[in-house]
Amino acid sequence: MKHYEGYLIDLDGTMFRGTDEIQGAKEFVDELNKRHIPHLFLTNNSSRTLEQTAEKLRGFGIEAQVEQVITASLATAAFIKEKLTSRRAFVVGQTGLISALEEAGIELTDQEAEIVVMGIDRNVTYEKITRAALNAQKGAYLLATNPDIKVPTERGFTPGNGAFVELVSHVSGKKPTYVGKPQPFMMEFALQKLGIPREKTIMVGDNYETDIMAGIQSGLDTLHVQTGVTSEEELAKYPKQPTYSVRTLNEWFSHM
Amino acid sequence: MKHYEGYLIDLDGTMFRGTDEIQGAKEFVDELNKRHIPHLFLTNNSSRTLEQTAEKLRGFGIEAQVEQVITASLATAAFIKEKLTSRRAFVVGQTGLISALEEAGIELTDQEAEIVVMGIDRNVTYEKITRAALNAQKGAYLLATNPDIKVPTERGFTPGNGAFVELVSHVSGKKPTYVGKPQPFMMEFALQKLGIPREKTIMVGDNYETDIMAGIQSGLDTLHVQTGVTSEEELAKYPKQPTYSVRTLNEWFSHM
Repeated sequence: MKHYEGYLIDLDGTMFRGTDEIQGAKEFVDELNKRHIPHLFLTNNSSRTLEQTAEKLRGFGIEAQVEQVITASLATAAFIKEKLTSRRAFVVGQTGLISALEEAGIELTDQEAEIVVMGIDRNVTYEKITRAALNAQKGAYLLATNPDIKVPTERGFTPGNGAFVELVSHVSGKKPTYVGKPQPFMMEFALQKLGIPREKTIMVGDNYETDIMAGIQSGLDTLHVQTGVTSEEELAKYPKQPTYSVRTLNEWFSHM
Repeated sequence: MKHYEGYLIDLDGTMFRGTDEIQGAKEFVDELNKRHIPHLFLTNNSSRTLEQTAEKLRGFGIEAQVEQVITASLATAAFIKEKLTSRRAFVVGQTGLISALEEAGIELTDQEAEIVVMGIDRNVTYEKITRAALNAQKGAYLLATNPDIKVPTERGFTPGNGAFVELVSHVSGKKPTYVGKPQPFMMEFALQKLGIPREKTIMVGDNYETDIMAGIQSGLDTLHVQTGVTSEEELAKYPKQPTYSVRTLNEWFSHM
């Protein structure tokens, strides 16, 4: 069994499930720390800041520094600085996205934006969606933190960021660019920050469509954990399988 | 030239354009009244009540009784009573839709709805959209006043009801049923109310995709007027042409 020198770890469904802890998650991270194996936490959730995300992990007893957290919001701010020339953005999103953009020196504006940036926004209004659509119609780049159409919650599936992005795209006729997992940008951003060669790094997550796809497409080995979205049965249907799949992360200690 | 004994007349783009009057509209309706030709006004706009719609017409000097107005909201309420057995609905929409449903004796509820009814709602919130999606997931019928994805305004294209309906459909996996033009239900509802045989009735409107299609699909002759959405050039591209097309309704008087 291969030994991995770096870990990229998904959060929701892997480290915790909403407000519930996940068996083995804390012990898994403790073991990485004990063995001094570099690791980063990767989340498509754009609503929390880096600090709020690290705090949430610590609330479950999981050791986490702000520097170890990569959110889709952070990756989106980095995408703008690396790939786009404009710095004027109209934002639909919550604190996590707004603060990531502000810290990156992006100017937030209501009108004549050159970029429309969309992340999940539970305070969304008709006027916000309309402004996003109008700015996109006038030629603004349409950038989104993550493509999730629906989010599993205890109430059922609730609308995800991707559902609103598709709406704005439909109205404006503008194609969106997505940054979060499984898109390559967020993965390359994380790999660069981790500083471990990709062939010695493993991507860990519960969701085949985002986490495992992200790893496969970026040429990483992948560890699927059956504590979240993709069950063992669902996993079997995919033609490209993860490198490993475990019931809980407790099963992984012997391989570290 | 055929003489028509009944007229079905579109509103926005045909009788007025937003808050602007349209040349010939008032004279056209005056002429119908002078000749005692029965006519109804048909609109996909679901936000205004019947009375508010009639008032809006009268504001342009156009004679209109409440009984002559058919909105997509009125047709949607009639659809529920005629086609569905349930009377418990969760509504996303404005006054026009809510009052049409209440007057039809539909019970409005937040939870465990058997029907989700959607019309344009400029006070839409994440929670309203979420409840629509959750009710639809649990099996509620997904019914919508009209399918318009975008609405032309002086600001540009703003999101129409269809854009939000598609979002809810996407999240819930439920296919929507649309009631307004060009769907046959609204046309049959109007024809029945008008009481003139369809071969003696003409549908008048500016929008090919809604008004003219509605007429063609319901076996009516159609009069396209070039004062709104579909220009003469755009009209030429459609394989099925309206029976007539005029620049303004002033050109029609000689045919009445």
